[in-house]
Amino acid sequence: MPPKTSFDWANVRKRRFGVWRYRELLPISDNVEPVTMCEGGTPLIKLNRAVDGHVYVKFEGANPTGSFKDRGMTVGVTIAKHIGVKGVVVASTGNTAASAAAYAARAGLACVVVLPRGGVAKGKLAQSLLHGARIVEVDGVFDDALEEVFTEVVINGKKDLYPLNSYNPWRLEGQKTIAFEIVDELSEVPDAIVVPVGNAGNISAIWKGFKELYNYGLISKLPRMIGVQAEGAAPLVATWNRKSETLLEIEKPYTIASAIRIGKPVNWLKALNAVKESNGTFIAVSDNEILNSVKDLAQYEGIGVEPASAASLAGYRKAIDLGILNRDDSVVLIATGHALKDPDTISKIF
Amino acid sequence: MPPKTSFDWANVRKRRFGVWRYRELLPISDNVEPVTMCEGGTPLIKLNRAVDGHVYVKFEGANPTGSFKDRGMTVGVTIAKHIGVKGVVVASTGNTAASAAAYAARAGLACVVVLPRGGVAKGKLAQSLLHGARIVEVDGVFDDALEEVFTEVVINGKKDLYPLNSYNPWRLEGQKTIAFEIVDELSEVPDAIVVPVGNAGNISAIWKGFKELYNYGLISKLPRMIGVQAEGAAPLVATWNRKSETLLEIEKPYTIASAIRIGKPVNWLKALNAVKESNGTFIAVSDNEILNSVKDLAQYEGIGVEPASAASLAGYRKAIDLGILNRDDSVVLIATGHALKDPDTISKIF
Repeated sequence: MPPKTSFDWANVRKRRFGVWRYRELLPISDNVEPVTMCEGGTPLIKLNRAVDGHVYVKFEGANPTGSFKDRGMTVGVTIAKHIGVKGVVVASTGNTAASAAAYAARAGLACVVVLPRGGVAKGKLAQSLLHGARIVEVDGVFDDALEEVFTEVVINGKKDLYPLNSYNPWRLEGQKTIAFEIVDELSEVPDAIVVPVGNAGNISAIWKGFKELYNYGLISKLPRMIGVQAEGAAPLVATWNRKSETLLEIEKPYTIASAIRIGKPVNWLKALNAVKESNGTFIAVSDNEILNSVKDLAQYEGIGVEPASAASLAGYRKAIDLGILNRDDSVVLIATGHALKDPDTISKIF
Repeated sequence: MPPKTSFDWANVRKRRFGVWRYRELLPISDNVEPVTMCEGGTPLIKLNRAVDGHVYVKFEGANPTGSFKDRGMTVGVTIAKHIGVKGVVVASTGNTAASAAAYAARAGLACVVVLPRGGVAKGKLAQSLLHGARIVEVDGVFDDALEEVFTEVVINGKKDLYPLNSYNPWRLEGQKTIAFEIVDELSEVPDAIVVPVGNAGNISAIWKGFKELYNYGLISKLPRMIGVQAEGAAPLVATWNRKSETLLEIEKPYTIASAIRIGKPVNWLKALNAVKESNGTFIAVSDNEILNSVKDLAQYEGIGVEPASAASLAGYRKAIDLGILNRDDSVVLIATGHALKDPDTISKIF
């Protein structure tokens, strides 16, 4: 870790807004050349009409491939190229695949994406094809795809393919920059961050980012982390509510929000710790609540998101109703992916 | 126009990278509140593998609605709201509609979009629906849609709908910030800018931006403007090559690049002047060349664009072959919209 003194807001703010602005806070040597497409630096949009209060959307759909995954992938693929692998492999509900395919292409690496058959939104599948990834479809859900990758790479030892799923720590290093950008732009720490939770890497990474800023003395308080899952795919909500010390897995997760249709999140323990340490909570929302939030973000705020992203607004509303958050709390909702990722679901609703 | 002295790079660079960073160069009073989603500030990506030389892509697909249209729309809708209209109306091949729908929603204004039936890519249509626009389909191409808007609003006098097509000067004021951002980020002026040309607003606006910087003494040279059209929709190439003083219209424009499927560009005269003044040219490229460029940007550079955007790379290659540009010229290719706008065309190719 860099010494506290090497990071200075005034100095880093001279650089382009985005992941690599915070290079001193990434554990990557100066001589390593990033594989980058200027990811990050995404809009922080104040909500004016959908809700009252001090609520912002961090719109990750404005990343190069249309989701927050690009933050982790720029770091992960930078490392993959640096250590000299031939290719990368990911299991994915679609966004990770699109991002891995794009960044691997940029780095000149092969890319294999393992997808749940029939479970990937159209735009994401098109992106994997477009960027030249080899697509392997498995029967089942994301969790089965991840097991396939794990078996092939770790058990069967296909070491020429570097696995870039979110248990890969480099991915989380990139994703933690969401926290840095929020503080950079607001010049203060919000009371809470509300994050859609699938494989649970993002909420863990964002919390890591805030804690680092705090530990370096760059901020003086920490936000509460609120994780939101869809009712049909809510293993962490169950685990949290029942105070279980092991993950209460969901065998057949289902939600219209395909990006968070995950029953066995690999980062469950990190996510539980993030929520516990931050005095936060996990909340489940229904598919109907998600779709209403998609509509409200689009028609009152102009923000077009895929269903999983809108879980954060749905979760925020529930947190207000339940008295978990107050109306005058300052809150940032993470909107993870663009509406264009999933035009079929949109067309079905409207 | 502001006095030269009110603009200072060091000062404006303290603001968020994007359209409103350059507020002193936009003709909008300080007391007018922008309708904004932090548009602009898009990636400028150095090409490493698809071509040699100093070639960058300005990736406008990373705007909030996935195309450069957001730059013009933030300014246009800000003005529409300020003057107190009830709603806005646009004719569109799809991207303008998506952007108008989103920004109108954010401003609480009604939005009517007039589209050529069957001529709009799926993602764009989904966006218009999502953001709650009223969709009117007309038989024919974009030019017929635009005539419909003109007739309804100007001839039939439906003054409660404010027209936001690219003959609206406010749109061009927003779009000119592409020039500002290029200079801001590179700290120099490229030798050439290559722009896909449909209704010809963007090339006119970008040129306006460079000229303003030049006239204020903020830059000391100007780039050449290279306009690229698809062979089946190339009225400006024909007009330029034949040195015609009137536009040689195309009655039935056709190209796979639906965003530039336009036969009677309203900004033709401004675009001709931009190219003439800048010692540039117009170039036609085939649909095959466009699709090859889509593929090369995606598979060598990781950049996912809709077909119209790739016309700029195809045009650059042709300009090199024809000796119009040199391999060591520094060049910025404008990539106007995201691959996710048109997943069907991508799926068809791959």
